[in-house]
Amino acid sequence: MQNMGRWEPDARGRLEKAAFELYAERGFEATTVAEIAARAGLTERTFFRYFADKREVLFSGSGALEDRLVHGTVSAPGNLGPVEAVGAALADVADDVFAGLHEYARHRQAVIASHPELRERELTKLASLASALAGALRERGVPGPAASLAAEAGIAVFKVSFERWTGGPPSRPLSDVIRESLADLKAVTASPAAGPAAAG
Amino acid sequence: MQNMGRWEPDARGRLEKAAFELYAERGFEATTVAEIAARAGLTERTFFRYFADKREVLFSGSGALEDRLVHGTVSAPGNLGPVEAVGAALADVADDVFAGLHEYARHRQAVIASHPELRERELTKLASLASALAGALRERGVPGPAASLAAEAGIAVFKVSFERWTGGPPSRPLSDVIRESLADLKAVTASPAAGPAAAG
Repeated sequence: MQNMGRWEPDARGRLEKAAFELYAERGFEATTVAEIAARAGLTERTFFRYFADKREVLFSGSGALEDRLVHGTVSAPGNLGPVEAVGAALADVADDVFAGLHEYARHRQAVIASHPELRERELTKLASLASALAGALRERGVPGPAASLAAEAGIAVFKVSFERWTGGPPSRPLSDVIRESLADLKAVTASPAAGPAAAG
Repeated sequence: MQNMGRWEPDARGRLEKAAFELYAERGFEATTVAEIAARAGLTERTFFRYFADKREVLFSGSGALEDRLVHGTVSAPGNLGPVEAVGAALADVADDVFAGLHEYARHRQAVIASHPELRERELTKLASLASALAGALRERGVPGPAASLAAEAGIAVFKVSFERWTGGPPSRPLSDVIRESLADLKAVTASPAAGPAAAG
């Protein structure tokens, strides 16, 4: 960021807000980068300093989220199993990152859900997150294929929790929903004979 | 299919083969639909009768696979838990669908892995499969959010198993790898105190 030619105060945030508004108003396809930049009071050139394309602007925080989740997974208590470690990391960062954003997250999900190109980009971000978390689990000593499975299962918890959270009341913390989903995952994965609460 | 103007013997299969060869030889971006059709000895118009775009041609069997997995999940033995039911469906259809295709599947995965547009389409297909399997689990009486989690976890098993299988010897049946991954998923999901083989 230091070496950018000209510094625009919160250019990134203004571009995100403008893009989000335009996608909601006119749809993703009908919106151009020039229009996003104009609404933000910036140039197209500035847009492309921050974002590779029109889709990326809705996924701006995903790199920082990934870093925090990787760190949280590596440093989760040693007595936790692999999926529990990912779940603990998710619950730990969830409220920090998403508290106060319930309304925004709900609208953002609706915009993403109604545009296949945005759904694709979201799936790609989640796959990248899963692969980073598998690396974090290998650092905890989990063998390769088991680490991939646990990371994918952790992402399933995140995905389902986020949907439950945005569809529910704003008063409920996301961390709460994540803990509930983690318990549900254990129940649906266990054998009915062995587990206490499995359905089937 | 009945109402198509002109019937081409195995047009679909010829287009798939031609596309796959061209993507491997020249790359996905550099290949045009006209070239695929020409190599298959067909017209562009015929291509678009079978496939919506250049990506779809590599995912031709996904609808049939989805139907079989949904059926297998709904009709899996009643004593199985939700993830076990999906796992049983996966193991049941795996060898039928993929036996003899190890070499092809390996090359196909390499082509997909090296093209972001194809990886995106693959993730979309897997997400659609997860959502169909969640529906199948709800038919088994599994409540909504638990059904989504179990379906996503089942897809994680499929994804990791398919990678393990294509990366391993052709002699090992895919169903074997799926059963192993399912056992791994149980181990990584359970609490280390409660489960027999969890890492951490």
